[in-house]
Formats: sequence, structure tokens, C-alpha cells
Amino acid sequence: MDVTQVLCMNGGNGDNSYSNNSLLPRKVISMTKPVIEDALTNLYRALNFPKTLLMADLGCSSGSNTFLVASELVKSIDKIRLQFGQDESAEILIYLNDLPQNDFNNIFLSVSQFQKGLAKQTIRNSSSPPCYFSGVPGSFYTRLFPKKSLHFVHSSYSLMWLSKVPEMTETNKGNIYMSATSPPSVIRAYRDQFQTDFSTFLKCRAEEVVTDGRMVLTILGRRSDDPSSKECCYVWDLLATALNHMVLEGLIEEEKLDSFNIPQYAPCAKEVRNEVEKEGSFTIDHLEVSDVNWDASTDHNLILSEEDNTHGYNMGKCMRSVAEPMISSHFGEAIIVEEVFERYTNIIKDRMSKEETSLINVTVSMTRKA
Amino acid sequence: MDVTQVLCMNGGNGDNSYSNNSLLPRKVISMTKPVIEDALTNLYRALNFPKTLLMADLGCSSGSNTFLVASELVKSIDKIRLQFGQDESAEILIYLNDLPQNDFNNIFLSVSQFQKGLAKQTIRNSSSPPCYFSGVPGSFYTRLFPKKSLHFVHSSYSLMWLSKVPEMTETNKGNIYMSATSPPSVIRAYRDQFQTDFSTFLKCRAEEVVTDGRMVLTILGRRSDDPSSKECCYVWDLLATALNHMVLEGLIEEEKLDSFNIPQYAPCAKEVRNEVEKEGSFTIDHLEVSDVNWDASTDHNLILSEEDNTHGYNMGKCMRSVAEPMISSHFGEAIIVEEVFERYTNIIKDRMSKEETSLINVTVSMTRKA
Repeated sequence: MDVTQVLCMNGGNGDNSYSNNSLLPRKVISMTKPVIEDALTNLYRALNFPKTLLMADLGCSSGSNTFLVASELVKSIDKIRLQFGQDESAEILIYLNDLPQNDFNNIFLSVSQFQKGLAKQTIRNSSSPPCYFSGVPGSFYTRLFPKKSLHFVHSSYSLMWLSKVPEMTETNKGNIYMSATSPPSVIRAYRDQFQTDFSTFLKCRAEEVVTDGRMVLTILGRRSDDPSSKECCYVWDLLATALNHMVLEGLIEEEKLDSFNIPQYAPCAKEVRNEVEKEGSFTIDHLEVSDVNWDASTDHNLILSEEDNTHGYNMGKCMRSVAEPMISSHFGEAIIVEEVFERYTNIIKDRMSKEETSLINVTVSMTRKA
Repeated sequence: MDVTQVLCMNGGNGDNSYSNNSLLPRKVISMTKPVIEDALTNLYRALNFPKTLLMADLGCSSGSNTFLVASELVKSIDKIRLQFGQDESAEILIYLNDLPQNDFNNIFLSVSQFQKGLAKQTIRNSSSPPCYFSGVPGSFYTRLFPKKSLHFVHSSYSLMWLSKVPEMTETNKGNIYMSATSPPSVIRAYRDQFQTDFSTFLKCRAEEVVTDGRMVLTILGRRSDDPSSKECCYVWDLLATALNHMVLEGLIEEEKLDSFNIPQYAPCAKEVRNEVEKEGSFTIDHLEVSDVNWDASTDHNLILSEEDNTHGYNMGKCMRSVAEPMISSHFGEAIIVEEVFERYTNIIKDRMSKEETSLINVTVSMTRKA
């Protein structure tokens, strides 16, 4: 599986699109707003009220969350500027980055409307737009920008995705991710891949971010030291359950399942800290762990029918919008994919009705050293 | 007609796509290479061999020409660097700009492959890519970048497109562009719209380009002082001929034709100079007028069949790839559009077999004053 080919959320605006099923990531972005504001305030002061700010949102995806981040960044800067009594609005350029398969055309068609809306929500003393946009295609595990060209980097719910499926010496039998039943070598392979990828990420950004520049990253993570703990693996375990049932029923070949592994690693705060300290270019200003209930995938204002009125329904759709390209690429046939997600959604519904289920976020805010 | 909606070349990679029918613009880019190299050399020296260069290609379209410009820019800088004995490769960011309807996804999918190819063609002493890419959606008649954020601006065969169809007080009867039979008020409306648009363009770029930054623009133009001279209007006159025939045959309503006007103005060198001097932020370093034969739309190495072996065939396809979105949006029905371009191509073939036909380019190279 070439991760750069399948690690795109479901595109477009349809029923199964990421764009229409991304309430949970949206909730996470809102939760980290205070951390972002703090980082921007300190940045703005440290750089002595710059007239131009160059920011990047890495793993921006395509949909309403893309503009939510941009909107928060611009509004925060406007608020901070007024707090510091600066007359002139800063000119902000936001680089929107994601893998080349991301639907940038879809984003670009909305830019002008977004700029107009945002101009009304900010106190502008300039005829220039409240922010400029630029799309940057490519993996954030490579260099994406010239040296010292960014003041602020943001990334939410993207860095748990690895650059590739870890190379395994043993088969991760019956599993599609780290699990309590995975061989220790599989767990190690996952951890090693995360360390390699995250340290590559830090090295690349260290080149690109100016001295005193800030970076706020939110990563799907875990509290436990154990990478195969339920808090991060459960959501994939349930998908594995659906797939295993289909193997038993002869709908999917066992070998097909055994060769499928999700290229994701949900680190704990300590692992994030370790990598940042090992790389050495950034100082950690803040590191926090938070929970978001699976329930956040359901917008209670938008529940339309009785059938939809189960928490699992939307979490199922949310996971589908994320996992469908990978599942389709590996298991092929549309009818199988449909069946996988129907079963997966039912299992999620069942679990959510019986237990508290949540995802863990690790948020880290850091400053580029001189 | 909302120009920002229809002023996109035919997308994709099909038979009528701009991507496969843009040999003439390609030829023009090659012709202006020495002017670009001169400007880059002077820029590089004036800025004292900068480590980072931020460049923009405005109206980049989508297809092989998009990367041709980028390739020329990067190779030029590499050559100049070696001439000046600079050890370190400059880091180059190229902003690719076009209207939001442009097929950026198509461009973005080729970026990584292009970077790899280019790395082999340049003498690199760094592990970073030979250039970084970023897409910028929006009209270049608006601000697109923060203040003083560009070192070099390039645009080829884009600035003759107006921001809108000029507002006319009289009907441009039987014509679709300025013509010998157009009322003087129509010619004035076209000229006024060009002056407004080009001066807006210069004002926007004056904000965005750094002191000593360079700008090289090639515009479809004319030698004559007369805006309705054949050298710039002929190619549209022939399209009008096809449309008028179809009106006579009852295939197109007369009112439909009378309300259709191409949002383009091909200026002479003097008009370009006037606007640059009036705006006042740039010094003209070089201004030249050149000819490119319609024949350049034919790649003689690529002629496959006897039928294709007429010069008009490819010029017809080239014009179709440019004009089809406008024609479709105005005249609607696919069958009519097919018929229009069949007739247009036949007329072009006929003319090219009987007379020398060429387009005129105005190329201007300028420096941002302090």
C-alpha cells in the first residue's frame, strides 16, 4: 500500500465524504483553540508585531475544517493585534498542505467566499483581504517550504498517520493495527516507524520555521505507556472484528486480512516529548492530553431521523470517511467495502450503547530555538 | 458572462484539452527565455545572492507549460548561481497562480515527479528539492500575496484576458471582438477596460514585489496603434465568421451572437509602457515586440495522420482549448459548440493555406523601484 496514494480522506461533498463527517476532528480543533491563541500571542510579541505572518496548516484535508483552522488563526491574530494596540492589521498567508491526492480544487473554489465572510468578522483597517491562501501538495515527512519561511505551523489529527505501513518481520495475524494479540515485533515496528517519521517531521520543520516561530500539533494519542492499549486501538479493533467475521463467512480471504495494517501510530505524551527533545531544535512550551468522546462525531443539532439518532451512526460514518480509501485500495470490490462499513458501524453502535468510548489527543506547543 | 467562471482553458488531458493543445504558448515561453534570464541575473546580483527566492507564475494554467516555466526559472537560477561562483543552491518557492476553476489537482499530482526530474537536470549541493511549489487560486487583478513577499513575477499569455467583458453602450453587431466594423464606442470600452485592469494589476504587484524585484510579462499584443487592426483581431474575426454563418443558417439566434464579446485586449507596446509609467512603481528595463507564426501551434514531429497534416488543424484545436468554455457557457448546447469549432477550424485551415498568419507578443521586463 502506497500511503501517499490512499491516505486521503473521502473527497467531495457526498454522504460518505470526510467533508460531511468530520465533526470529531472539528471538536478537537475547538478544544485546542486556547493553546493556539497562547502560542500566537507569544509569537506576535516575540517577533515584535510583524506586518506579515506566514502560517502553515499541515494535513489540512478538504472540507469545512480546512477553513475552520484558517478562520481561528486569522481571528486570533486580529484579537491579539487589538490587545497589543497595534493599528495595522497583519497580512497573513496561510499555506494549506496535504498529500497531492487531497481535493485542493474543492478548497480553492471556496477561498473567495471564505475571505469575504471573514472580512466581516474581523476589524479590518485595510483594503487587502483578511488572509491569503496557498495550497502546498506533498507529504509533511519531506521538506515543503524554503528555509526559515514560516512563522507558525499548525497540524491537527494528521501526525498519527505514518509515512508508510511499518515493515514487519512477523504477521500481525487477525489484526489490522497494534492489538493486545499482536506479536511484540509488530508493536516495535509500529513504534520505530513513528519515531523515524516524527523525527523526520521535526527536522524538516526545524529548517522551515524561523527563530521564535511556533508550532502547535495535536495528534491522536493515548494516556497509557502501552502502544497496544485499548484507548488507542479499540476503534481499529472493532474494524478488525468486522473484517474477521467476513473472513469466517468466506467473504474476504484470510491472507488479504493478514496483509492489511493501518499506517497509524497514536503516541503518548512522553513519546512526543522524547522525540522533540532528541531532535533538539524546539523548546516545548506546553504539552497536554485531553479526551474527546466518540459521541462528538454526532452533531445533536443535526440529527434528522430516528434511525440516525444513535451515536454510533455518525462515528461509523466518520471512520468510514477516513478509512474507506485504504479499505477500497486493499480489499477492492465495492460490494465488500459496503459490507465492511455496514458491519463496522453496527459494531460501533453496539459498543457506544454499552460503554464510554473516547479518543485521546496529545497537544504540544513549541518554539523554534535560536 | 462571469469571466472568472469561464476563463479557464479546457481542463484534463483529453483531445481538446489546453494541456494537449498549447504548443503556441509553449513556443512563446521559449522565445522569452533570454529576457527572463537577464532579469533573473540582475535580480540575483541586486539582492546580493539571496538564499531564498520567491517567484510567482501568474496565469499558470494546467498542463505541460505550467512546469515548463518552473523548469526554466529553476535552471536559470542554477546557471546564474554557478556563473557568480555561489556554492550554495538557492531555495526557490514557485507560486503557481490561476483562477480558482483551474485544474490545480492535475498540477499537484505531477509536482513530485517534476521535482525528481529537475533534480537530475541541475547541479545540486543540497538534499532539499530543487524547488518548492504552492498553488494560489484567484484573479491576478486582486491582491494574491502579502506585501513585499515576491522576488520575481512571471506571466505569459495571460494578461490580455480582461477581468470582465467591457461595458458597452452600443451593440458590437455581428462581431465578437474589436473589429474594423465595431462602433468606436466599443473600441473605447475595450481600451478603457484594459487600462483599468492592467493598472490594477500593476498596483497589486507593486505592493507584493520587494524593492529590486523583477517582473517579466508577455502579453498577446499588436504592433499597430489601432486596437482593431487585423494582426490582433483576425483570429477572433474568423470565429465571428463561423458564428455569423450559423446565424444565417438559423442555427444560432442573432441576439445570442450580438450579446457575445470576448473579454480580451491585445495591447501595443506603447500602451503597456504608458500604464507602467502612469502607475509609477516599476522601471522598464526592456520592452520588445515579437511575432509567432500560427504555425507554431503545430508540432511537426507529432503529425500523425495525413488529415492532421495541415497547419490549421492544430491552430483550430489550440483556439478551441482556449475558447470552448466561453462558447459553451454562452451558446449552450454541445451540438452547436461542436459545429462552431468544426467550422472555425476549417476557416483557419483555409486562411493559413493562403496567407502568412502570426500573433504578436509584447514582452516587458521591469524592476520594482525602491
